This record gives sequence, structure tokens and C-alpha cells, in this order.
Amino acid sequence: MPRMKALVFDEKLSLQDVPIPNPLPGEALVRVRMAGICKTDVEIVRGYMNFHGVPGHEFVGTVERTPDPQQLGLRVVGEINAGCGQCSYCRKGLQRHCPNRSVLGILGREGALAEYLTLPATNLSPVPDGLPDEKAVFTEPLAAALEILEQVKIEPEHRVAVIGDGKLGLLICMVLRLTGCDLLLVGKHPEKMELFSTIGGSIISLDEFRGRDDRFDVVVEASGHPSGWELAVSRVKPRGTVVLKSTYHGSLNFNTAPLVIDEITVLGSRCGQFGSALRLLESDLVDPTVLISGIFPMDRAEEAFRESQQPGNFKILLRMMDS
Amino acid sequence: MPRMKALVFDEKLSLQDVPIPNPLPGEALVRVRMAGICKTDVEIVRGYMNFHGVPGHEFVGTVERTPDPQQLGLRVVGEINAGCGQCSYCRKGLQRHCPNRSVLGILGREGALAEYLTLPATNLSPVPDGLPDEKAVFTEPLAAALEILEQVKIEPEHRVAVIGDGKLGLLICMVLRLTGCDLLLVGKHPEKMELFSTIGGSIISLDEFRGRDDRFDVVVEASGHPSGWELAVSRVKPRGTVVLKSTYHGSLNFNTAPLVIDEITVLGSRCGQFGSALRLLESDLVDPTVLISGIFPMDRAEEAFRESQQPGNFKILLRMMDS
Repeated sequence: MPRMKALVFDEKLSLQDVPIPNPLPGEALVRVRMAGICKTDVEIVRGYMNFHGVPGHEFVGTVERTPDPQQLGLRVVGEINAGCGQCSYCRKGLQRHCPNRSVLGILGREGALAEYLTLPATNLSPVPDGLPDEKAVFTEPLAAALEILEQVKIEPEHRVAVIGDGKLGLLICMVLRLTGCDLLLVGKHPEKMELFSTIGGSIISLDEFRGRDDRFDVVVEASGHPSGWELAVSRVKPRGTVVLKSTYHGSLNFNTAPLVIDEITVLGSRCGQFGSALRLLESDLVDPTVLISGIFPMDRAEEAFRESQQPGNFKILLRMMDS
Repeated sequence: MPRMKALVFDEKLSLQDVPIPNPLPGEALVRVRMAGICKTDVEIVRGYMNFHGVPGHEFVGTVERTPDPQQLGLRVVGEINAGCGQCSYCRKGLQRHCPNRSVLGILGREGALAEYLTLPATNLSPVPDGLPDEKAVFTEPLAAALEILEQVKIEPEHRVAVIGDGKLGLLICMVLRLTGCDLLLVGKHPEKMELFSTIGGSIISLDEFRGRDDRFDVVVEASGHPSGWELAVSRVKPRGTVVLKSTYHGSLNFNTAPLVIDEITVLGSRCGQFGSALRLLESDLVDPTVLISGIFPMDRAEEAFRESQQPGNFKILLRMMDS
């Protein structure tokens, strides 16, 4: 049985030599070219979702086996939610909400921080020829940022604040600035805010933001801290929208009366569609490569994972195959 | 200076003889014909909004003085939020979200549990001739129920659960059943649930609801208990909507991760528009008189207020003038 290198989480995370996964009927075997380490992967190693196995869900790869002959040898990215195909969500194209889904590297399916992975062949999208691996590997997190625009109508005259200057917050800003809205990033880390100024946008520190009293049509909470949630609710206009991108450990404690009195909408937001993300990458309207803090070979995957947890770093990538 | 009888809250609630309020420029003086006691009034007497003075915001009355000669002598109901008329909310017809608003009997304006009240003349809507006071007095709470339909698109094939069999919960059911949706009232009080069965709808006890595992497109939380909020979030479908009609004393403690993972929308909902409420009352599509538990004369207003707090009672009305 052929084997591969993979980062495996089981009590602790380690680089191991494991069997290459076997595609089930309808599934393709993908050789991973490049994979990104996401904050969710870090949380999984801290116990999130009670997942054990290979984490990772951001990847670009090459199709080595597939039931669809047209896919063979193509460079692809992959929708991470594999639905049952039968339920009312799957029939509406919302397999990412299928109650029986598996999720790559998160729920019931080995992930992308490995040399090979399997996914249903229908989950795969070809990557345009001109799009390098370093950009294509951002398709999944960019789609998650784009999901906000599928859920909320952001108008050009809207004032929008994004709380959180991590990878997700910055990707969200890269997407939301395309709407022409009046966009403000609320951050904590000077080096990240400096990066954002090169992207082009207004920036403000958390403390300065707390001290202001203006309000916003839309506030996106992407800080990952409970304090970000309270701040978001306190700074949204009556009838405005708070988009909740962060999940927190444990419970939040807060007063719901302002939500009712000001008729605020709170919108949970998770995964998005890959097609629009690929279009924005191909047209260079979004260039996420400024977020790359390091690219490591598979042999140094453990070190890469540690690096991804350093506060100053943005995206750490693993390269399994040369482009 | 002419005087009137009014329920006044100042440390405690008592029936007093006080001066008739003086309308400011642009305001009308309305002689109250009938007023309803709302749960918000009861909470005000417990300290909500730190309001002191005359509570009450549900009324029908006759215009005695007004800057608009066409209004003189008309029977009217009145929008309870008085905006500044200048801000961006007022200009969009959303004076109920004006940051400088006063609110009848709730915030900076003496209320309707009195023989007279004042409101801006533009806040008043004439009551159609055929509509008796006993129905017109429900215009404000019915508008608050209708607000849900202004905020959420409820489709005929949607499954909708309303948690809470109080006055507001039942009015919400009376409105939502008009959409043709598959409607379920989740209640606690057998006598209230019995009433609902005469209105026409499915009913289930809280315990039975907790024991089921089906999910709903829309869940309306109108129970006024924090447990209602948790129940609502646990029973809404992925991508569904929780409408939050209740405000709670103090803070809620809950895990936000399901909101994000299932991309749930939480919608705070408060006051609504009077025009549509009057149309539904006039056409008899909603008949709220089944909710009347007692009508008291002004002399017995203190007793009426106590009655409104009895668990078995729905709406208690005060009648100041004979129809």
C-alpha cells in the first residue's frame, strides 16, 4: 500500500508516514501541490470539533485518480464540504449545510496538510492556467470572505468596519473594498495595519475605535475575541448588520436588549462559493500573496505549523510539489 | 390649569390628579378613549428604561387640539416614537429609530394611561369609522407583530415556530398565519394554548417542543425568558432566522459557534407601522378582541394594573370615555 507524509493530530501534532487515502466511489484522489495553515487548524490542535487525523482544508492540487476522465491531471481547488447529495440543502447547492456532510480536515474526513487527499469529484474546480499555486491556495478563505456579500447587500455609500486584523479580517477587507463602501479596519497589531495601508484602506486601532462614537451600517467581527462581539454590537447603527465570522471558545455573556431596541441583524457567516473567489484571483482584483509570511517544504511541516501560531505572521504555506 | 386622572409611576404606581399636558408647537392634545396595559408598562414599574411619570403607549383617543384643522375631533391612534424630523432615520420614515426620539410612556414623554396625552400631530392616524375602540386600541401591539413581516420574508412553505404564548406571541401568530406558513405556537399555559386553538393553529407545550428534533425556517422568540432564546437557536434550520422580540433583564450567556457554523440570522424586532395594522383590523383578518381579559374604568386603574400582572390574564384595557 503506497504511503505519504502527513501532519497528523492525535493527542499531539506530528509529521508521520501514513497510507495514501483510498477514494470512495464518486471520489477523486488529489495530489496536494500546496496547502495553507488556517486558524481553524490551530484550534483543532487545541481540541476544536474534537477532530483527530490530518487537519487542513486550504489546498491546490493535481487530480491523479477520478471517476470523471475530463478531470484527470488537472490542477484543482476543492470545496471542503462533502454533502450527501440527497437532502434539501444539497439539492439547493448548499451542500455546505448538509446535515450529513463531512468537512475536509475538520469533520469526518482527512485533510490537506498531507501529500494526498480525497474529495468527491464534483467538489473540484479547475484552476485557470495563469493562476499560480501561491494564489490559488487562497481560494477557500477568499470564498469565506466573499460569503459576506452573498448574505448582506453592502451598498457603495455604506460605512463598514471590520474588527480584526488577522488573515481573515484582511481578506474580508480586500473583498469589501471592491464594493466602493467606506471601509475601516480596526486592528491591534501595528505590522498588520501597516500591511493594510499598502492594500489601501482606512485603519484605526482598537483603542481609538472604542473612543469614537460614530456608528456603522455593517460591522464584521473577525477578531476571534469575545470583546470584538460586544464592540461590534455597540458600534452598529440602528437597523444595521453585525456579521459574525468568529467562533469563540466557550460562551459569550451579553445584553440582548440593544439588538431588539435597535432592530439589529446578526448574521453568522462561514464558507462561501469557489467560482467567484477564482474569478477575483484570476482578474487580480484580489492579490492575497501579500499575506504570505512563509513557504515551507513538507519535511518542515511541524516547524511551519509552529510558525503559523506566531502573532506577527499571516499565512504560512506548505509546498508539497514544485510549480 | 385643567387637571386629569393619570396613573403615575414615581417609586410606586398610583392614580393621581395631575395637570393636563401642554402640547408643544406641532403637537396635538388627544383625549384618551381607551388604553391597553402592556408588559413593557409592567417592566417600567420594575425599573425598565428608568422611566418616571405616566406609562402607557397603547391607546385610541379623540383629537381636542391640533395644528392640523382636518384632525380636530377625529378618533385616532398614534405612532409612539416622536422623532426629530431632521436626521437620516426620520427622513427615511424610520422616526422610530431616531437617536433623539421621545417614546410615549417609555422615554421622555408622558404616556397613555391617563385621560389626556400629547403627540406630534403627524404621528396620528385616523381610525376607520366601523372600527370599535376595543379593536383600534390593539393597533400598536399589532404593528409590532407585523414588523416581523417587514423584516423577514416568510414564505408559504416555511415552517415557523413562535415561542411564547403571551399577548405578543398570540398577536404574532394571528399575523403570521396570514402568510399561509406552517405555524406552531410553543406555549406554557394551557388556558392560553386553548385560546390559540380557537384562533386556528398548531400548538405544542414547551416540554414537547424540547423533546422534538425537527427544525424550523423561522423561530420567533417572544417568551421573555432567556431559555426561549437558547431554545430558538437550537431549533432553527441552518441558514434560518431567529426573530428576537423579547428583551431580557440582565445578560444572556450562550455559545455563538452554532450561529456561525449554521449561518443563522438573528433579527432584533421592535415597533412597526400603523397603516397595515389598521387595515388588518378593519378587514377583520385579525380580531384581537379574543385577547381582552378585562375592561376597567379609570377610577379602578390601579386594580387594572394589578390584574394585568396575573399569569392567566391577557390584555387588560382602561376605558376613559364611552364609545
